[in-house]
Amino acid sequence: MSTMTLFHSPASPFVRKVRVLLHETGQQERVALQEVQTSPVAPSPELLAGNPAGKIPALRLADGSVLHDSRVILDYLDSQHVGEPLIPAAGHARWRRLTLASLADAMLDAAVLLRYEQALRPADKRWDEWSAAQLEKIEHSLAYFEREALAEIDSRFDIAAIGLACALGYLDLRQPQLAWRERYPGLAAWFAEVERRPSMLASAPSR
Amino acid sequence: MSTMTLFHSPASPFVRKVRVLLHETGQQERVALQEVQTSPVAPSPELLAGNPAGKIPALRLADGSVLHDSRVILDYLDSQHVGEPLIPAAGHARWRRLTLASLADAMLDAAVLLRYEQALRPADKRWDEWSAAQLEKIEHSLAYFEREALAEIDSRFDIAAIGLACALGYLDLRQPQLAWRERYPGLAAWFAEVERRPSMLASAPSR
Repeated sequence: MSTMTLFHSPASPFVRKVRVLLHETGQQERVALQEVQTSPVAPSPELLAGNPAGKIPALRLADGSVLHDSRVILDYLDSQHVGEPLIPAAGHARWRRLTLASLADAMLDAAVLLRYEQALRPADKRWDEWSAAQLEKIEHSLAYFEREALAEIDSRFDIAAIGLACALGYLDLRQPQLAWRERYPGLAAWFAEVERRPSMLASAPSR
Repeated sequence: MSTMTLFHSPASPFVRKVRVLLHETGQQERVALQEVQTSPVAPSPELLAGNPAGKIPALRLADGSVLHDSRVILDYLDSQHVGEPLIPAAGHARWRRLTLASLADAMLDAAVLLRYEQALRPADKRWDEWSAAQLEKIEHSLAYFEREALAEIDSRFDIAAIGLACALGYLDLRQPQLAWRERYPGLAAWFAEVERRPSMLASAPSR
């Protein structure tokens, strides 16, 4: 029986991280999904209760309290299963994997800001330098994952790998013209494998 | 002797959180500050080594590895002292305090985006609806802290309180016209006290 409610929107890559972790740790049944219509310039009123910044995802617990944002929710849910944690508890591994996850989040932040610039902001108010700067962050981050972190990422499907997988999936959804696979064949091969995981298939956004 | 290097810029509220935690936990001497000139549309090359998204703050450890972003650095540094942790280790307190810290971060994200819109983006490309949406997030968050979380925040100067204090300090620096104290007297009284803490004084941005 579901005792928690996850406020989500289907295309949100930050929500997807949570859904993937739920699946990987066998906790899907514990969480009911509730879709909310929201936009960065028009937040949903139902979302704002206990969540005044209108964050998606937000997780309402059985006692009515609300957790956000995605990192806090991931930390919470990872503490609620008996398997090996997807966030290492301590030591070098913890901060290295969290830094890689933070890099994936930074790539997502840039990709989301780019999407707002291209699809939400009126055409005459778009600023090319801003879009170029977001694209550069994405490109630098992809290059780092390909050249410096591929073996690490490939070693375990944990918090860092989930973050990267959801970031690559979001680039495919919103920035397909980037054609990142051409420049990053190692990431392409890795993603071809992980996107077939049940957790990734079950959380894939519809195109 | 300093064994770590914190890449910082003096006005960054995300850096300030780290500096406050270092001070509160007696670790200032362990970290050398290195200022970097950076901008969201012109990242600094020295910053990008091991930190491809150009995040500020970034923390270089003695072994040369680099941690980012501010949340990961706070988590790391909080594990490196012998006092009571400023991030509760487990239980309800952990996720509640992290959610409040995340709300303070959301307020900061909105305030930083607002600043970019007002001061960085060319005047003819500014979008009033975007600025209004950021202001609304800040306002909702302030109202929540005042009405729902003031006693909690006041109970301990930990990760949640540090986040809020740095967010309020940043509003004073960049959005003084908001005059938030007029609408949130409880927060004003709390902040008047905490901004006199040595950790807050030592990390205050110059106006």
